[in-house]
Amino acid sequence: MSQHDAVEVITAKRDRQQLTDSQIDWVIDAYTRGDVADEQMAALAMAVLLNGMNRREIGRWTAAMIASGERMDFSVLSRPTADKHSTGGVGDKVTLPLAPLVAACGVAVPQLSGRGLGHTGGTLDKLEAIPGWRAGLSNAEMLAQLDDVGAVVCAAGSGLAPADKKLYALRDVTGTVESIPLIASSIMSKKIAEGTGALVLDVKVGSGAFMKDLGAARELASTMVELGTDAGLTTVALLTDMATPLGLTAGNALEVRESVEVLAGGGPADVVELTLALAREMLAAAGTTGVDPADKLADGSAMDSWRRMIAAQGGDPEAALPTARETQVVTADADGVLTRLDALAVGRCAWLLGAGRARKEDPVQAAAGVELHAKPGDAVTAGQSLLTLHTDEADRFERALSSLAGAFDVAPAGTAYTPTPVVLDRISAP
Amino acid sequence: MSQHDAVEVITAKRDRQQLTDSQIDWVIDAYTRGDVADEQMAALAMAVLLNGMNRREIGRWTAAMIASGERMDFSVLSRPTADKHSTGGVGDKVTLPLAPLVAACGVAVPQLSGRGLGHTGGTLDKLEAIPGWRAGLSNAEMLAQLDDVGAVVCAAGSGLAPADKKLYALRDVTGTVESIPLIASSIMSKKIAEGTGALVLDVKVGSGAFMKDLGAARELASTMVELGTDAGLTTVALLTDMATPLGLTAGNALEVRESVEVLAGGGPADVVELTLALAREMLAAAGTTGVDPADKLADGSAMDSWRRMIAAQGGDPEAALPTARETQVVTADADGVLTRLDALAVGRCAWLLGAGRARKEDPVQAAAGVELHAKPGDAVTAGQSLLTLHTDEADRFERALSSLAGAFDVAPAGTAYTPTPVVLDRISAP
Repeated sequence: MSQHDAVEVITAKRDRQQLTDSQIDWVIDAYTRGDVADEQMAALAMAVLLNGMNRREIGRWTAAMIASGERMDFSVLSRPTADKHSTGGVGDKVTLPLAPLVAACGVAVPQLSGRGLGHTGGTLDKLEAIPGWRAGLSNAEMLAQLDDVGAVVCAAGSGLAPADKKLYALRDVTGTVESIPLIASSIMSKKIAEGTGALVLDVKVGSGAFMKDLGAARELASTMVELGTDAGLTTVALLTDMATPLGLTAGNALEVRESVEVLAGGGPADVVELTLALAREMLAAAGTTGVDPADKLADGSAMDSWRRMIAAQGGDPEAALPTARETQVVTADADGVLTRLDALAVGRCAWLLGAGRARKEDPVQAAAGVELHAKPGDAVTAGQSLLTLHTDEADRFERALSSLAGAFDVAPAGTAYTPTPVVLDRISAP
Repeated sequence: MSQHDAVEVITAKRDRQQLTDSQIDWVIDAYTRGDVADEQMAALAMAVLLNGMNRREIGRWTAAMIASGERMDFSVLSRPTADKHSTGGVGDKVTLPLAPLVAACGVAVPQLSGRGLGHTGGTLDKLEAIPGWRAGLSNAEMLAQLDDVGAVVCAAGSGLAPADKKLYALRDVTGTVESIPLIASSIMSKKIAEGTGALVLDVKVGSGAFMKDLGAARELASTMVELGTDAGLTTVALLTDMATPLGLTAGNALEVRESVEVLAGGGPADVVELTLALAREMLAAAGTTGVDPADKLADGSAMDSWRRMIAAQGGDPEAALPTARETQVVTADADGVLTRLDALAVGRCAWLLGAGRARKEDPVQAAAGVELHAKPGDAVTAGQSLLTLHTDEADRFERALSSLAGAFDVAPAGTAYTPTPVVLDRISAP
C-alpha cells in the first residue's frame, strides 16, 4: 500500500478534491492501526460531512472498512440468505416477527443487530426481555443456528469492520454523525462483511427517524442501494413512515409481546403490513418465488420458527415476559379524532421511562415503555386512555409525561384524516 | 460560566450558525482544561475553517484564548510600547535591526518571538547564532531589560494564551491551519496578552509567504487590525512583498550578519526600506513624533541599542558568527536580466541545507543558508555567481540544489523589468 500522510488526505477533502482510492485505503487502514490519530480522523470526517464524497469514494471507503476486519461466508448453507436493516424508529419491532417468518419461507436470515441509543430501541435489548435469551454467539454457533433454524438475531462480533466500530464511536462525540456518505458506508460495511446474499433496507422517514424528510431519506437509500449493488449484493430499499410509532408499543418486553401477536396471526395492521412487505422483498431479493409469507403467519410455521430461534439462543419462548411495577395512563381531554401522535415524543417518553439508554454502558429496563391505545385516524372520547406509561421507577413519570407536551392532536369529531401509507417509496438498482 | 457540550458547539458551527459568546467562552476554556477532547476541537476547527466566523465570533474567540492564561502589563514602564509581528517570510530578518532601532527612538519593544518551522525562519533561531545569546527570560527579566535597554526579543513564556498553544499544535496535524479566523485569533491572542500598547503587522504576500495572494492577505490583515482595535491596541498592518527573498541572505547567522550591516548604516536597500517603514509605523502607533529612525541608523544609536540588547541576554555582539564548513555556488547559464528569484524555492533550499527544521524538536544549523548575489532586476553574465549555498553537511547539497529547479528566470539583456514595491498596501482601523 502506498504511503500517504493524514494532513495530505484531510486537506485534499477540505479543499473539495476527490480522495483517490489509495488515499482512502491508506487512511482507513492507518486509522484502524492507530497511525492516524482520532483528532485527524475527526477533522477528515467533518470535511467529508461538509464537502461530500462521490459514489466511487463512498464505495472505496466502504470496501476499506470491510477490509479492516473479517468477512463472513454463508455459501456453505443449503439455503439462500437475506438480511434486513432498519435505520431505526420508535416501536420498530419488525425484525422479531420478520426473521422467523422469512426463515419459515426457506430463506436464511443472518441478522447482526445492535443495542438502542437515545430514543430508538435496539433489537437486542428487546430480545433480552425474554428470560434466558443471549445475544452473544460465536461465528460457528451463528452458522450452525442458521443451518438448523434458518434465522439468527445476535450481536455483531468485534471482528466485522473494526474501522467502522472505531469511526462510529468517534463520529458520535464529534458532531459528524449526520453525513449520508458516512452513514451509508457505516451500515453497508457491516452488512456486506456479514456475508448476506441479499439485503432489504428499511429507511425510516419522519420525526421519530434519523432522516426527517423524504428527500434526505431517498438520498441515503439510493446511496446504500448503490453500495450494495456495487458489492454484488441484491439490494432494495423501502422508505417507510416514522411520523408516528409503528404498532401500539414502544419498549422492550412490550414490543416482544406485540411481535408474538403478529406471529400468532394477529397484531396491529401497520406492523403486519410492514413485516409482510419486507418479507416479500427479502424473498424476491434472495430469488425465492412461489411462497406467500402471509400463509406462513396464518399456518403457524412462522411462530414455530420463532420458538426454535429463541430456544436456540437459550431463551424460553413460553416464559412470562417481565411487567412493569408502575403504570400511569394519559387520557384524552375531549371527544374527537386523533390526528397526530408524534413518534419522537413517544420514543423520548419510552426512553425516559427506562426503556432506552443515554450512554452505551447504561442498563435498560425490560418492562419499561409506552403502550398506545389509539393511533392517528382513530376516534377518541374525553377521558379515554390514549397511552399507558410503564416503568419500574415511579419517579420517572414526571419527566416522561413532560416529554409528551404537544405530542398529539385531537381534532373535532368529523375532521377529515388522510392516513399516511406505511411504505412511502421503493428504491432498487436501476 | 454556563454549561454547554462539545457536540452542541460543533454542530452549531457545522450547520453554519454563529457561535454565541457563551459557547465560545465555554469551548475554549473546556479545551484548555482537557474537558473538550482533541478530536472534538479538531472537528470544530474544520467546521470553522469551512464555514467561517464573523467579527464578533473571532473577537470573542481571541478574548477567550487570552483569558486562558496570564496577561502582561507594561504600564509601569516610563516609555510607550510598540511591537511588530510578521506572518513569516524568507530572509525576513527585520525584527533584528527593527527592535533596537525603535528602542533608540524612545519606544520600548517587547518582542515575543518563535522558532522557525518549515521554510520560514524563526527570529529566535537567528539570534541563537550569536555566541552566548539565550532566548529564555522570566517575565521580571523581560521587564527589567525593557526598562533598561528598551528592547527585548525572547521566547514567549508558556503562561501566555495556553489555549492557543494547544490549538496551534492541533491545527498543525489536522489540516486546519489555513483559516483566517483561526490564524488571526492565534496571532492576536498572543500579541494582546503580551501587553504591547501598539502593534504593527507585517503581512507577507507571495510565494514565500503563507498568504499567496493579495486578497487573502488583505482579509487576514483587516481581521487582525479589527481584533487589535477592538481590544484597545493601536493596530496597523502593512502588506509587503514576499515573491522574492528579503535582502540577500536566508539562514540564521547569515541573516544576523546582514542585520548588523543595516544597523551599521548599510545593508540591502529592501531590508533598510522595510525596517524604516515598520519603525515609522511603530513610532506613530505609539504616539511618538519628531524622531526620524533613519537618523538613528546613521548616527550609530540603533547599533548601540543592538549591542546592549544582545549583551543583556548573554550574547557577545563582537563575537565572530559561525561559518559553514561547506559552500557551493550556483551560477548563471547566460547573460541577461534576472527577472524572477522565487522566495519559496530559496526558503526550501535554506531549509534543506539545515537552516530550518522539519519537526519542532529538530536542531538547526546556525551557519546554514543561502546567500544571494543578484536580485530581480539585476543584470547577470554567464558564469556569474547567483547564489552561494552554505551548510555543515555536504550531503545536503544534492536535495538543496534540486529544490532550486525552476526557481529563477534570466531573460535576454534589455528585457524590461518592473520592480515590485516592498510595501504593497497599508491597512489601518477606519
